[in-house]
Amino acid sequence: MLPLLPLAPQMKVNVFKIPQNSPSDLTALDALVKAQKLDPTKIVAILGKTEGNGCVNDFTRGFAVQTLKAYLQAKANAVTAEKIVYVMSGGTEGVLSPHLTLFTRQKAQPEEPRHWGLVLGVHHTKDFLPEEIGTLSMVKAVASGVKAAIADAGLTPENVHFIQIKCPLVTSVSSLINVEGQMLKSKDSYQSMAYSRGASALGAAVALGEISLEQIKPDDICINYSLYSNIASASAGMELSNCEILVLGNSPDSASPFVIGHSVMQHALDADAVRQALASTGQPPDQIVNVFAKAEADPAGKILGRRHTMLDDSDISHTRMARTVVGAVVASIVQDPMIYISGGSEHQEPLGGGVIAVIARL
Amino acid sequence: MLPLLPLAPQMKVNVFKIPQNSPSDLTALDALVKAQKLDPTKIVAILGKTEGNGCVNDFTRGFAVQTLKAYLQAKANAVTAEKIVYVMSGGTEGVLSPHLTLFTRQKAQPEEPRHWGLVLGVHHTKDFLPEEIGTLSMVKAVASGVKAAIADAGLTPENVHFIQIKCPLVTSVSSLINVEGQMLKSKDSYQSMAYSRGASALGAAVALGEISLEQIKPDDICINYSLYSNIASASAGMELSNCEILVLGNSPDSASPFVIGHSVMQHALDADAVRQALASTGQPPDQIVNVFAKAEADPAGKILGRRHTMLDDSDISHTRMARTVVGAVVASIVQDPMIYISGGSEHQEPLGGGVIAVIARL
Amino acid sequence: MLPLLPLAPQMKVNVFKIPQNSPSDLTALDALVKAQKLDPTKIVAILGKTEGNGCVNDFTRGFAVQTLKAYLQAKANAVTAEKIVYVMSGGTEGVLSPHLTLFTRQKAQPEEPRHWGLVLGVHHTKDFLPEEIGTLSMVKAVASGVKAAIADAGLTPENVHFIQIKCPLVTSVSSLINVEGQMLKSKDSYQSMAYSRGASALGAAVALGEISLEQIKPDDICINYSLYSNIASASAGMELSNCEILVLGNSPDSASPFVIGHSVMQHALDADAVRQALASTGQPPDQIVNVFAKAEADPAGKILGRRHTMLDDSDISHTRMARTVVGAVVASIVQDPMIYISGGSEHQEPLGGGVIAVIARL
Amino acid sequence: MLPLLPLAPQMKVNVFKIPQNSPSDLTALDALVKAQKLDPTKIVAILGKTEGNGCVNDFTRGFAVQTLKAYLQAKANAVTAEKIVYVMSGGTEGVLSPHLTLFTRQKAQPEEPRHWGLVLGVHHTKDFLPEEIGTLSMVKAVASGVKAAIADAGLTPENVHFIQIKCPLVTSVSSLINVEGQMLKSKDSYQSMAYSRGASALGAAVALGEISLEQIKPDDICINYSLYSNIASASAGMELSNCEILVLGNSPDSASPFVIGHSVMQHALDADAVRQALASTGQPPDQIVNVFAKAEADPAGKILGRRHTMLDDSDISHTRMARTVVGAVVASIVQDPMIYISGGSEHQEPLGGGVIAVIARL
Repeated sequence: MLPLLPLAPQMKVNVFKIPQNSPSDLTALDALVKAQKLDPTKIVAILGKTEGNGCVNDFTRGFAVQTLKAYLQAKANAVTAEKIVYVMSGGTEGVLSPHLTLFTRQKAQPEEPRHWGLVLGVHHTKDFLPEEIGTLSMVKAVASGVKAAIADAGLTPENVHFIQIKCPLVTSVSSLINVEGQMLKSKDSYQSMAYSRGASALGAAVALGEISLEQIKPDDICINYSLYSNIASASAGMELSNCEILVLGNSPDSASPFVIGHSVMQHALDADAVRQALASTGQPPDQIVNVFAKAEADPAGKILGRRHTMLDDSDISHTRMARTVVGAVVASIVQDPMIYISGGSEHQEPLGGGVIAVIARL
Repeated sequence: MLPLLPLAPQMKVNVFKIPQNSPSDLTALDALVKAQKLDPTKIVAILGKTEGNGCVNDFTRGFAVQTLKAYLQAKANAVTAEKIVYVMSGGTEGVLSPHLTLFTRQKAQPEEPRHWGLVLGVHHTKDFLPEEIGTLSMVKAVASGVKAAIADAGLTPENVHFIQIKCPLVTSVSSLINVEGQMLKSKDSYQSMAYSRGASALGAAVALGEISLEQIKPDDICINYSLYSNIASASAGMELSNCEILVLGNSPDSASPFVIGHSVMQHALDADAVRQALASTGQPPDQIVNVFAKAEADPAGKILGRRHTMLDDSDISHTRMARTVVGAVVASIVQDPMIYISGGSEHQEPLGGGVIAVIARL
Repeated sequence: MLPLLPLAPQMKVNVFKIPQNSPSDLTALDALVKAQKLDPTKIVAILGKTEGNGCVNDFTRGFAVQTLKAYLQAKANAVTAEKIVYVMSGGTEGVLSPHLTLFTRQKAQPEEPRHWGLVLGVHHTKDFLPEEIGTLSMVKAVASGVKAAIADAGLTPENVHFIQIKCPLVTSVSSLINVEGQMLKSKDSYQSMAYSRGASALGAAVALGEISLEQIKPDDICINYSLYSNIASASAGMELSNCEILVLGNSPDSASPFVIGHSVMQHALDADAVRQALASTGQPPDQIVNVFAKAEADPAGKILGRRHTMLDDSDISHTRMARTVVGAVVASIVQDPMIYISGGSEHQEPLGGGVIAVIARL
Repeated sequence: MLPLLPLAPQMKVNVFKIPQNSPSDLTALDALVKAQKLDPTKIVAILGKTEGNGCVNDFTRGFAVQTLKAYLQAKANAVTAEKIVYVMSGGTEGVLSPHLTLFTRQKAQPEEPRHWGLVLGVHHTKDFLPEEIGTLSMVKAVASGVKAAIADAGLTPENVHFIQIKCPLVTSVSSLINVEGQMLKSKDSYQSMAYSRGASALGAAVALGEISLEQIKPDDICINYSLYSNIASASAGMELSNCEILVLGNSPDSASPFVIGHSVMQHALDADAVRQALASTGQPPDQIVNVFAKAEADPAGKILGRRHTMLDDSDISHTRMARTVVGAVVASIVQDPMIYISGGSEHQEPLGGGVIAVIARL
């Protein structure tokens, strides 16, 4: 865990977006390191889109993390490599292009000018037991973790623009049935991803003050979607047992050459919200570095009043379809398919919609 | 086959778009018929998006046609039901919403004013043998058929805006290996869809004068993509053995309350071409009735310079992904996901792109 | 509903197995009818394996039923066509070969000898509301229906060898969330198939006296798998709203040239149980007409102590995999892949196993 | 490359089969190493079944190899880790259970008794260019490599029982169209797997003297299946650019406590061939260590005279289905689903069939 000192006033955050030709391809990263454009010892978080199915048996996430860790252990050191928040989101369906976004953080030099710009905080929670996933106990642990990450960023909730949480799932189906006498929330692995994302998002909502912990009853998780966060994005994977949290926001004392903004898509075709999010950075289109958005097949089975078939198609998981749709909509507006769209937005925004954050170069 | 008389001067075409809750759902059609808003004896073509996989084993197309034929045999008569051009395009991935577009054609009354507007022509070719699919012989037969349909519309090639061809595929794999000593063009069923679409599109290109028959060598089909049509859209299915052809265009003597326009998408994210196609109708956005577009995963493996993974994903056919992408892009612009996007655009427009036609109410 | 008179003493049942080249192919059936080998007015039940995905959006089942009904309305009459129990089970994965098994029933002639042989009964329940699916109310209705079908067969429970129930599912996802204030049992369409099959199987267990209605608590359905039937096979589909029930057994007064036997597979690789079921008919291997078995991916995630990955594979539904496995095992023993294997065996036999019934010619 | 000295007379081969809970799970391997039951410096080949889709975008193979190499670099040394033949075959559909089979080879002690038993040889070919894959040039290179591996085993062709070749595929679709003016054999990535396997198998057939190089015309590859090997098994993957070859056979001078036998399945349901292969080891069933078999969906579209739908199912690759079928058939006979079944058997045995080899403990 990184120290919780108020780093923000002196924080300089850099952002690098690089393509990957496969989950184990570090060609572009190595080129940056060799050219001394990126100091590997300063990396604090890596968000990646890897080309698996984004569902239970997606090993591209773990493969990418294993490859990155081995590289960074060699190029930086074991402690740094372990401290980094790795958020690999599987699924580059449609036009989405596999890539990594790397965040470095370092002390700003006294002579560097300060301005309204990007800051970040990270946190690793404790490991969760299978029977904790999707419960109030997980909500509470994530809420504490998000608060710690906000503090780590030196932010207050109102200036947070994006919270990304990577959370665990339950793969071993035998363990789903009954672990030490406790019935699990979910009855299958794919469903456990939803519970894990849902509890994580509710934790973030509590940390941000969007809802209070008392408002959430145990049965609300993945049932009562009137409770949600306007900022959180959660993504589940089998490659971890804890939650890894990244908080992004703007601070008046930033030394970063980047700024972040966000909006909320009300539905998967909400092009206006995409344009709003872009505009909220105050930067022209050619300064956009990356877009981070959530995608969900509207659970009501309709979009703009028209029936969709994503939830009834037993051949393709609806999370894969939802990513393809939102990815295409956003990419057609920014004219860049190398963007970060992640699926499954339980308790993350209005049903069928999701948060959309944009990082731009100043 | 409908008569090849110059019908256009006195032709009145109507267009109806109706939702389907399943391939066998005719609730909305029956309501129109019962309300006497649609005369079933005047239907000449039905284009549908059905909710199958759009690939080889997509039986939703045949199910929809069987249901429509049975209904229209009862409501109109057997001869009319048989003469109709049924083009069911499978695959409503992502936001695409299953629906039918029905075209009626009737003699305009003398007192009805004439104006620049929609006319149409149809044609049914002979049945093709498995070994003819994807050959020059098929190209020639389709070229004749498209010419007949253009004549049936009373059009000249320069006023044609959209040609839809439904073409057969080869399912029986045993027959792929060797039929009467002839080696088939394709080695698997999914590939036979590409050859059938490719030869059909080249036939249309010849009929329109975009290319000459002499330019096409037998080995060009599905190899040399510098030969293509700017107007044709072909869709393969196992539910027919011949080609069914629908030609749409504008004529100065139309009595139809509709008009058609089109453009060409250079790639799957070409939002400008979508807006161009809409604008080409000269009508405001709220008058748009339907959009008809082709989708293809760029065979170069890149879109806007970024790698895509559609062609390497062995779990989801790339035609399904391409439809999802183009469907989302177009739907986000017209704010209506009930549109007609069909996959596989061999010899139909630039690689990775495709024709996009728009029908608007005047 | 067929009359509940004690038909068995005078009942002559015939069984016909015919291939289908597609869900709408009736070539083989028409040949039997034209050759007067099969009297279409005597058909009481048709079990089919159709080549869809066997999951929610499998329209091959409805397509086959629509085709059969239209044919039989013409060849028999509308009343007969409506009374028939149509059980189309989707999914012919692996070696499974699409086919229909037709059952005819007629009064035996006085001079025909009686012997220990096949009899059958059928029943159609009332339609179910979405919120009834997977509830005790459904269990009760199915229990009554199965009792009626057993009586229709003139059987007592101990001589019943196979009960096939076709049951509905909930497709419209919007209706899943809340129908008139009632929370549905299932949260997605695929899951609703499991609840429907589970409640149907429990209904059969109650009718057979395997368990008592009082033993089943509302929360037991699809949770407490210690409650199950040794005989029932349930298959869900969107093409019906009620349950259609077929009961097969042996009676000493049968005039049928067929006999039925059954066994229980303890797991998907239980070849011994397959051989037992074959032997239980007392007939040599070349007299086997068809095998009817249930398949399930063991929910414990292991088979014979080895981990399987069927439940964690998000690209292929585990019901599809389970059918492939059991289909291959049984087909390798009977050396015929044209057999009836249906997936999803909630409350149907031991976890991971399922009933296997065999019809042989005497 | 290992030295080509006649090692066999003094060779002692050991075989270890261990489960994997994921492609990166080495728990069981590490336990063997820690217990000093397996000397990591003696490993020469590792055959694995990993839980990906076994098709183009299966990264579980590369993930497993990366994990194994990192472990063995640490536990043995970099040279040994690099020399090992890693053959990861993706796809554990149905009951197949992910596992590794490790082969060690060491000099036998003079006092160890010699007997008829297992020996092995390995070889790594040069890297292939994309345009070489599936050509005669590849056939020749593999033929030389297999000859070298046979010599490495100290075997003559008639005592070879199994040859496993891991071969490359072409992922980058852009490179498929035209590399330096050369048209590639295959037009898509999935098809490139077939060409690579086909050329590799023909290479093995040439090395074994089953066919002569002169018999093979360039156009025969993946067209003329009357040319094939009775022994070779080839498996393609993106995780390598060369071919890695493992040859297994019996020698009279073996010091190994294992023996190998094989047979040929004529079709996917050929249970007799499975029993023959088991019997050919001369050992009782409880001594079976592992079974290695090829699986293929019969390209004629029929098995035992019945139509199958594997080649027309556009939702599931037929190689996945074929593995499930053969895996279930073999597992039901040996009552162990932890077996090695690999898909795609171009030029490997009769159409629809494949080699089946068995290793048993003496």
